[in-house]
Amino acid sequence: MLEIRIEKTTKPKQKPENSAKLPFGSIFTDHMFVMNYDEGKGWHDARIIPYQNLSLEPSAMVFHYGQEMFEGLKAYKTDDGRTLLFRPQKNIERANNSNARLCIPQIPPEIFLDALKAVVKMDEDWIPTAEGTSLYIRPFVIATEPHLGVKASSSYLFIIILSPSGAYYANGFNPVKIWIEDDYVRAVRGGIGESKTGGNYVASLKAQEKAHDGGYNQVLWLDGVERKYIEEVGAMNIFFKINGTVITPQLNGSILPGVTRSSVVDLCKSWGYPTEERKISIDEVFEAFQKGQLEEVWGTGTAAVISPVDQLKWKDHLMPVNPGKIGPLSQKLYDTITGIQLGKIEDTFHWTLEVK
Amino acid sequence: MLEIRIEKTTKPKQKPENSAKLPFGSIFTDHMFVMNYDEGKGWHDARIIPYQNLSLEPSAMVFHYGQEMFEGLKAYKTDDGRTLLFRPQKNIERANNSNARLCIPQIPPEIFLDALKAVVKMDEDWIPTAEGTSLYIRPFVIATEPHLGVKASSSYLFIIILSPSGAYYANGFNPVKIWIEDDYVRAVRGGIGESKTGGNYVASLKAQEKAHDGGYNQVLWLDGVERKYIEEVGAMNIFFKINGTVITPQLNGSILPGVTRSSVVDLCKSWGYPTEERKISIDEVFEAFQKGQLEEVWGTGTAAVISPVDQLKWKDHLMPVNPGKIGPLSQKLYDTITGIQLGKIEDTFHWTLEVK
Ligand SMILES: Cc1ncc(COP(=O)(O)O)c(C=O)c1O
Ligand SMILES: Cc1ncc(COP(=O)(O)O)c(C=O)c1O
Repeated sequence: MLEIRIEKTTKPKQKPENSAKLPFGSIFTDHMFVMNYDEGKGWHDARIIPYQNLSLEPSAMVFHYGQEMFEGLKAYKTDDGRTLLFRPQKNIERANNSNARLCIPQIPPEIFLDALKAVVKMDEDWIPTAEGTSLYIRPFVIATEPHLGVKASSSYLFIIILSPSGAYYANGFNPVKIWIEDDYVRAVRGGIGESKTGGNYVASLKAQEKAHDGGYNQVLWLDGVERKYIEEVGAMNIFFKINGTVITPQLNGSILPGVTRSSVVDLCKSWGYPTEERKISIDEVFEAFQKGQLEEVWGTGTAAVISPVDQLKWKDHLMPVNPGKIGPLSQKLYDTITGIQLGKIEDTFHWTLEVK
Repeated sequence: MLEIRIEKTTKPKQKPENSAKLPFGSIFTDHMFVMNYDEGKGWHDARIIPYQNLSLEPSAMVFHYGQEMFEGLKAYKTDDGRTLLFRPQKNIERANNSNARLCIPQIPPEIFLDALKAVVKMDEDWIPTAEGTSLYIRPFVIATEPHLGVKASSSYLFIIILSPSGAYYANGFNPVKIWIEDDYVRAVRGGIGESKTGGNYVASLKAQEKAHDGGYNQVLWLDGVERKYIEEVGAMNIFFKINGTVITPQLNGSILPGVTRSSVVDLCKSWGYPTEERKISIDEVFEAFQKGQLEEVWGTGTAAVISPVDQLKWKDHLMPVNPGKIGPLSQKLYDTITGIQLGKIEDTFHWTLEVK
């Protein structure tokens, strides 16, 4: 067990109303977990302290060279009062894969998990229970060495903050419209696309702006080399159901290996759908649409769980898929995953972890 | 003129020894420039204050989504006591190009220039004069809105810090060995490669580590699509002199438009060298080497000005170019540019700007 120093807040904040209208990611709980890394000393001084500002030198490397890694997962409160995490080990594993690519030191998985459990336990009362809400958990690492010049930092902070949150998309579990981008590129093989790090997200803002201006919610990225193969959506992986088969782009180094993606693949297979992780081109999708075989499209991600897509726009082509409706498989996936997360459906895959 | 509130330090720090051994980018002066941006208010509250830590919420967007932009330029002290900046307008223009790509608000160029001049003037006594030293200036913008969720921030800080610095490479103006990377990729067309932003640098660390382990100083990147065309070095643009002609990769969207690069192109042309900005493949370079026509290779950047390259390593091929020696054109470029920067050579191009 990790030794964690605990300093409780003396000024507990007012908790937000337990309402389905909670915003996403802008309210934070009373406490946060913090741990330091210094070259020669390793990770040390694990502590839970009142949520507070960070004090960093303006030359701290995170402000200049983008050495930052983050994760995102959720805690849920069951009807019988238990607190559940959804597949935290997957996030920890991905965090360390990102760390390796970004030259950030590894965080021992058991320490990471202890930290997650301890901080969630501390602020357990903040977990909202209204429809579609949960406690969003944001672990992240930033480079803190005060130095200008490109190299890996010699010091870091590992922090976990908690945000009681509602729906990620303003419209909740409702169909989204997706813009397929063929000018801007988010990531390329050999780059940092499969790492969860700031650089990938700032690269996406310009196309997101373009999509919003055109009346679309999200951007679907094509590969950076041939601009032809489907990659992923802004903060989601993407699935197509074509003529009975479920297809999602394979993990190729430039897309994020989503935890929800992996869960959806397992579920679809367990339900007997032919399920393929492979290269899929935008032309194949368009052709399926033209033939009337594009049955469902949905995005998967921790924030929104399942996002049914009811319209794709690619160049001059509009592809309405179930306009205004939620496809039956999208609905079943949403119900099953949120059911498991909330302890309402039997967790045959052993995906949830109770925080005790 | 920009109105700048000034708060002078009451505890001036001890200045470092004026020595050629000054480190690069780790000592900072007494003051810094800070200005806020808030949606609806624009840029406001310009101030020069004592160099101090920043206090930011852990949810500040810069820690998560990489919305950060930086610049780098230098101030020099001439023998007759004047303070000169080198082409600051070019850095300001590039900063705003980066800002546009990163969805960061534009900084009015005249405000940017006023800020640069004011803060450099304030800490003018910190400009070192020993051989190879200067005052390195680091303007940067970070996203400060406390919010989790991918979008452009609604608030920012624009900061300028100053670092009296020596040589960027430990070995000063001496030949460097370069490793040509053909696995990792730094940037791709359609991405953020031509912006000066953290994401590009963190992406480069892993290959830099590989190069260092192999005994090389720097990485030369190939293009992300065909992995064939020369892009740039870690923090420098690259030039080849082949059979009398000076060649540098053209600005293509994925490399940084270097200020030193532009100055070197102008100088080489003014001296009558055929000078080409165009695509150049690694095969072309290797072929020139084999034919004995690869006369000189050098990197260009603010930090090191000119870095003569004496060895290139590409896959199993070693290309020693003037081993251990500095080519005559590299030497002439270094002498001319640093001569202009220090006010020792007539500035026929009007590149320097005196801070009064
Ligand atoms: C770029 C990107 N792709 C996919 C996902 C989905 O991953 P997960 O299901 O683990 O949340 C996310 C984030 O959450 C993401 O940021
Ligand atoms: C990636 C990269 N390329 C090239 C350069 C050279 O640009 P400049 O000559 O403006 O310093 C730099 C930085 O200074 C850089 O970071």
